[in-house]
Amino acid sequence: MSESVKNRVMSLLDKAGIVLTEKETSQLEITDLSLGDLEVEGLQLITYINNEDYCAKELILLSNQTCPEHLHPSIGSQPGKKETFRCRFGTVYLYVEGEQTENPVVSPPKGKEDFYTANTEIVLKPGEQYTIQPGVKHWFQAGDNGAIVSEFSTTSRDEFDIFTDPNIKRVEDN
Amino acid sequence: MSESVKNRVMSLLDKAGIVLTEKETSQLEITDLSLGDLEVEGLQLITYINNEDYCAKELILLSNQTCPEHLHPSIGSQPGKKETFRCRFGTVYLYVEGEQTENPVVSPPKGKEDFYTANTEIVLKPGEQYTIQPGVKHWFQAGDNGAIVSEFSTTSRDEFDIFTDPNIKRVEDN
Repeated sequence: MSESVKNRVMSLLDKAGIVLTEKETSQLEITDLSLGDLEVEGLQLITYINNEDYCAKELILLSNQTCPEHLHPSIGSQPGKKETFRCRFGTVYLYVEGEQTENPVVSPPKGKEDFYTANTEIVLKPGEQYTIQPGVKHWFQAGDNGAIVSEFSTTSRDEFDIFTDPNIKRVEDN
Repeated sequence: MSESVKNRVMSLLDKAGIVLTEKETSQLEITDLSLGDLEVEGLQLITYINNEDYCAKELILLSNQTCPEHLHPSIGSQPGKKETFRCRFGTVYLYVEGEQTENPVVSPPKGKEDFYTANTEIVLKPGEQYTIQPGVKHWFQAGDNGAIVSEFSTTSRDEFDIFTDPNIKRVEDN
């Protein structure tokens, strides 16, 4: 399945005109967050640069795939990651903590509603962007055609992410 | 001429699959750096986000256009801008301070050689990137088909940029 997912990711990148080097292609990260149901809850990503000052990634979502709710906490005296999501392809339905949106377009994965609490809806189409402040819970789901999101942010420390679903492990222990 | 340049920029973005909002399109920055010869020395850019932590831009270069040599100085206790150039479309010939490259592919604009001193060549094709450290002089030129470069960086303060050519004003006085 993993190879098939990789092919679909490469096809989405191709449609968006986004070129990766061979090395980047080999380093494409595909994660089901240890939930075992990648097509429903998971994420694919490429990290272009992540240094002590800033980070840039490309997030690729399969059709209707959801990246589960999480937040980026402060670490010691450093504030949590601030991140700007810029939609490059497809449609992204982003939900952040705040006032509840009436009649949201999409729903959390079935049976997982307890782990999806952020309910202010932001719909991003190509060229549109939104900045998520540090410590704010958020989750996002792609529309029918999948989606590609450029993420510009402060330094990324994925291993500290706090997911609402206690079954999630972002980084494998091994 | 300006409208024609804008059309060419939009055409390059379109070829690269990069979508801007209407507002961004209206805010496209076209600068000849007060040299009056945009096609030879100049730059077009869109700033997606520039906050106190990070910055992301799209730089668009016309065919064989050169962005003149400059550096990003430290400001008070803050180090100068660190920036990662990622080529999205076309070819970019980037020159940074360091060991002289023998037989570089391109040359500085004719008659302006005195203002181009950085001569370590880095050639970037789509998917390739390079990080320029703070305070390092650099200039870059597009290949025959123009080029698009995504810039990921620390906070941008263009008004402090130091250009080697004393005739350059990055930001108009008015």
